[in-house]
Amino acid sequence: MHTNVKRIQQDIEELSRFTATPGNGTTRLSFTNEDRGAREYIKNQMIKAGLNVYEDAAGTVVGRIEGELTNAPTVLIGSHFDTVLNGGNFDGLAGIVSALETARVFKENKLKPKYSVEFIAMIEEEGTRFGVGLFASRAMAGKVSRQELFECKDANSIIMAQAMEDFGFDPDKIKEAIRPKESLKAFLELHIEQGPILEAENKEIGVVEYIVGLLAIEVKVKGRADHAGTTPMNMRSDAMEAAALLISRVGDYAREVGEGSVATVGRLSLLPGSVNVVAKEVTFTVDIRAKDSNNIERILKWIYTELDKISENKNVTYEVQTLLDVQPVKLSEEITDIIENNCNNLGFANMRILSGAGHDAMVMADLTPTGMIFVPSKNGRSHSSEEWTDYDLLHKGIEIAFETIKILSEA
Amino acid sequence: MHTNVKRIQQDIEELSRFTATPGNGTTRLSFTNEDRGAREYIKNQMIKAGLNVYEDAAGTVVGRIEGELTNAPTVLIGSHFDTVLNGGNFDGLAGIVSALETARVFKENKLKPKYSVEFIAMIEEEGTRFGVGLFASRAMAGKVSRQELFECKDANSIIMAQAMEDFGFDPDKIKEAIRPKESLKAFLELHIEQGPILEAENKEIGVVEYIVGLLAIEVKVKGRADHAGTTPMNMRSDAMEAAALLISRVGDYAREVGEGSVATVGRLSLLPGSVNVVAKEVTFTVDIRAKDSNNIERILKWIYTELDKISENKNVTYEVQTLLDVQPVKLSEEITDIIENNCNNLGFANMRILSGAGHDAMVMADLTPTGMIFVPSKNGRSHSSEEWTDYDLLHKGIEIAFETIKILSEA
Repeated sequence: MHTNVKRIQQDIEELSRFTATPGNGTTRLSFTNEDRGAREYIKNQMIKAGLNVYEDAAGTVVGRIEGELTNAPTVLIGSHFDTVLNGGNFDGLAGIVSALETARVFKENKLKPKYSVEFIAMIEEEGTRFGVGLFASRAMAGKVSRQELFECKDANSIIMAQAMEDFGFDPDKIKEAIRPKESLKAFLELHIEQGPILEAENKEIGVVEYIVGLLAIEVKVKGRADHAGTTPMNMRSDAMEAAALLISRVGDYAREVGEGSVATVGRLSLLPGSVNVVAKEVTFTVDIRAKDSNNIERILKWIYTELDKISENKNVTYEVQTLLDVQPVKLSEEITDIIENNCNNLGFANMRILSGAGHDAMVMADLTPTGMIFVPSKNGRSHSSEEWTDYDLLHKGIEIAFETIKILSEA
Repeated sequence: MHTNVKRIQQDIEELSRFTATPGNGTTRLSFTNEDRGAREYIKNQMIKAGLNVYEDAAGTVVGRIEGELTNAPTVLIGSHFDTVLNGGNFDGLAGIVSALETARVFKENKLKPKYSVEFIAMIEEEGTRFGVGLFASRAMAGKVSRQELFECKDANSIIMAQAMEDFGFDPDKIKEAIRPKESLKAFLELHIEQGPILEAENKEIGVVEYIVGLLAIEVKVKGRADHAGTTPMNMRSDAMEAAALLISRVGDYAREVGEGSVATVGRLSLLPGSVNVVAKEVTFTVDIRAKDSNNIERILKWIYTELDKISENKNVTYEVQTLLDVQPVKLSEEITDIIENNCNNLGFANMRILSGAGHDAMVMADLTPTGMIFVPSKNGRSHSSEEWTDYDLLHKGIEIAFETIKILSEA
């Protein structure tokens, strides 16, 4: 293999030191001291790898190798280096390291690509600090407005624009981060799976075909608060009983729809919330994901049909509000095939897979042909300090990333 | 009728002035200024009605008419005058006023009973201030220990014993409140229904046969937190889905058991509680009530059987903890018959009913033959400022209370 597992491990370990919560997972929010520390490490590695390094207007670190062709579009590889609260050291970083190591291998082997290659390290993908994710890629796509920067605040009420400015970026220049479509040739993101499928299927590499669409809704079921002792069962409007009728079956309906569709009730609150009072209001979320927007629609339609029946039978009313609506993304077939061929050539056990989580690649896919490589997550864990990918598996994924970039930057 | 609706209305209205939350329901906690104000009003009314007034060691106000017989047991009538936070003006007070008005009618009609009658006004029935209810009746039954008084604290960390002492009662003398069984002939409590049955059935009086038993349990269902997007449906241990399977059906099982049995899930929390994370732990309560402990047992057994099935099917585990276990109480058949006869004699529409809520009468029933009269609650509302009973209905209930005490104190 061209890539080097020791350097890969060293990158992960060095970058893991930049956390606001040492001993309790990795917390690296955008435009903080931890961002600064990781950023300097990444820039230094890029400089050592002979890249021309700059930062774009959104704070993305970019290291560039000029290609032989002039006025030709650029191939991008990278991911993000911000984290969730008390997260792990692989979500995002795996892709950052794939970029650093690929750059180093280009230098080591004195590879001069035909097309320019940019190695990119993005921030605020998780949206942990300012509540809106996929920031750096959206900035490239022209989907971040100046207004957003002045409206978003962190938990300490610091406005995003202010945080950017204090960090050394000019929020008024955010539109300078835009990458015209014609300037790009491809984007490749290596990422951990964050799920259990590759491990369960005994695969080393996941070749991502689709990034699932996501519809998150909030359902409010309204009944009536009654004394739990004095109100006969047939005179109640029990919002909890009604909500449970839906919640207990929505997962089964997602199973029925199939094709990897999922539905999850992850948040629920009820009023008044006393042991001896019938619930008057239950509010819960349903997170629906599928590779196909028809499947999401089917599940949503089923939810409405069931809520209609339940509200009639159980004497409650309901409201549904959309929290998030992201369309499914099909990645570039061409790049997907290249990744798969590379795996097969190197004898790495691989499978086509859905990405159940959102990634910068979703946004980039609108701009340029995009591919994604997944490496396995031990026990499917992610967004926690338990997050882990064996270094030899990460190594294999990064080798595929290098091979894929080599091809994309040549032809 | 012997009793007087104007005096009844005046009592309710005068007593309603003693609230810590004027304009926002009635809040009258034990051993506070509001307790003092209501207490003085009650004592004055008792003195005007010619009673010998004293306070027992637990703070219960007692007004006594000596009977003709010496060394004979005493008939008691009364209820409580403490309230929940932002409660109404009828829960407890209806029974206080039944005692005051009955005493006034005894004086007006120069009735000299054979057995002594005591008109009692109790406190801390709700347990709102110190967290343990039925205080005054438990003190009569010898069920309040000195230790309890020194352990219970209010929301401001004031120890109950200190609050009693500051108010003028000696916590070391609590055992002096005990009423030996042989000293009592009967207890009668008039109370608002706090439920919708009498109104729905178009009845003026409820003749309480049973006070339901209550088993409150807390169920903790443990699954595994997983990413809502990346974890296939068949690889989850979703604690919320599992809990909902039980919650959606426990009410139906209570309906099936029947005989007024009820089951309510009024409190639920889940971890971690994020839209996009499968719930790893759901904790919810089930409040089960029935007139018969066999019915409570049946529902509990069903819950265990279902939880066993669910945990196997859904790959979760569970724990059950008992929060509260109160046995059902059957009230005195003799007194129940007297109340019913009185209703029929006066032509008041009446029905046998269960009390779904706990009352001092539950505790008193262990000491002496006990009866309860319910008057309707408008829209079934209670424990809120909406609590209401039409004065003509309260009047009818109090007339029945008077007639019942007359009989109990004569034969």
